Amino acid sequence: MVAVLEFAKGHGTRNDFVLVTDADDARPLTDEEVRFLTDRRAGIGGDGILRAVRGRHIPEWDGDPDVWFMDYRNADASIAEMCGNGVRVFARYLVEEGLVPEGTTEIPIGTRAGLRAAALLDDGRVRVWMGRPATADSGTTVQIGDSNWPATNVDVGNPHAVVLLGEGDELAELDLTRAPGWFPLEAFPSGVNVEFVDELAPGHVRMRVFERGVGETDSCGTGTVAVASAVARAHGETDGRWTVEVPGGKVEVDLAQGEAWLTGPAEIVARGSVRLPGEEIDD
Amino acid sequence: MVAVLEFAKGHGTRNDFVLVTDADDARPLTDEEVRFLTDRRAGIGGDGILRAVRGRHIPEWDGDPDVWFMDYRNADASIAEMCGNGVRVFARYLVEEGLVPEGTTEIPIGTRAGLRAAALLDDGRVRVWMGRPATADSGTTVQIGDSNWPATNVDVGNPHAVVLLGEGDELAELDLTRAPGWFPLEAFPSGVNVEFVDELAPGHVRMRVFERGVGETDSCGTGTVAVASAVARAHGETDGRWTVEVPGGKVEVDLAQGEAWLTGPAEIVARGSVRLPGEEIDD
Repeated sequence: MVAVLEFAKGHGTRNDFVLVTDADDARPLTDEEVRFLTDRRAGIGGDGILRAVRGRHIPEWDGDPDVWFMDYRNADASIAEMCGNGVRVFARYLVEEGLVPEGTTEIPIGTRAGLRAAALLDDGRVRVWMGRPATADSGTTVQIGDSNWPATNVDVGNPHAVVLLGEGDELAELDLTRAPGWFPLEAFPSGVNVEFVDELAPGHVRMRVFERGVGETDSCGTGTVAVASAVARAHGETDGRWTVEVPGGKVEVDLAQGEAWLTGPAEIVARGSVRLPGEEIDD
Repeated sequence: MVAVLEFAKGHGTRNDFVLVTDADDARPLTDEEVRFLTDRRAGIGGDGILRAVRGRHIPEWDGDPDVWFMDYRNADASIAEMCGNGVRVFARYLVEEGLVPEGTTEIPIGTRAGLRAAALLDDGRVRVWMGRPATADSGTTVQIGDSNWPATNVDVGNPHAVVLLGEGDELAELDLTRAPGWFPLEAFPSGVNVEFVDELAPGHVRMRVFERGVGETDSCGTGTVAVASAVARAHGETDGRWTVEVPGGKVEVDLAQGEAWLTGPAEIVARGSVRLPGEEIDD
């Protein structure tokens, strides 16, 4: 019986993950094990688990059977389709674990949102294609306490409402200990991620994000793409590069011909072995 | 140059620690490294670091030079004298790392609060002597919002104010998102840890704790001793055993002839190697 699991821990702009390899899907993780591994006090700790499995073992994957599939579970054990920061960390992990040939500079990665290519840059950062963000014509109003702002709706596979702050608004002062409200309510029946943006200079912004169901976080990959898309739209621009500062670090978003790429850091911090609870240890 | 550090991660009632061995104090950790290692997202994560160093290398230790000294640093890199949960986890670590002879059942441990003996019980728990708690004659009043309670002052090497809740008070309903107030203010010029207690049955209590400078925590070793002492005093008792439920688990406190012992779980969850930032990796 397997009682000890090899793992790595890594993060991208402080969005952090426990990573494990199970090429042949020989040892799926139960919900309880996922919650244990992501438990920051009684386990290892992370926002989610990234499991490296060959595509052929994933029922919903019909692409290259040899591709490394990112089997992503949130900390609560629910399945997640994609994560912009997670894909970067996953790519770095495949390199450091020797799971891709030495010298590889672009890694195809299977995800539940489809195939993603991760490019390894010389400076250690990773660039990932983020799809085709869609900004909406009719925006929403976002509310914190007595303050209201018009927001741009952006779909990056998940929904975002982006507020561009004006004079007199202090990004650092916003109270994001509770979820901002929005109206009309029916604009986002399943909730929405809300971003607040300060433009520091042309092509350079700073943001904070409240992730639906989570709270304020240090980073949100799709959120940075949503912010770049909303800022571009506000200036009547379509293509270009935006440097986006999040509380957890700094990334770049490239927009070109309706498509988006996210470039940012990805680090593997530690590796080791962890005892899974509820099983006997074989000595 | 050392760039990779071997570590373990463990916890006692969800009070968690990164553990490292440096018998000869050959590689002290800088404040920055302590903060990195305890960083739950960019590092490993823990409430503090427990470093195993032989006593002879600790300037303030004048006992047995061969004793294992628990060099304890808080997550913010400040030095801490003692930690009831930490000592248990440290003892378990010494056993699992083979740093004490096989079959050892009582381990002497050097701490900045003096020598402590940790007894390894057959059921996996660890018992630690916690000194001589002192309950004060004149108590304090503790306040949350509009509610006031009389508290018993208990000194367990650090100061505690213990509130025994009565009918109509719901332990689970208390708002501990902010520090409770107390008066007279001059009773605790350096702040105080505040415990709230529900008596479930004779010798069986449930508590929550607000640790000064930290906030509500899942567990506080000295707090459980303070609670047992205050409950004993309220019933005119001195010696006995109290089962204390904390949010992170369950411990037992024994009081006898003015002395206290704390018995509870201690687990080593994982071990591995971690890259320290800011140094070159030697391949």
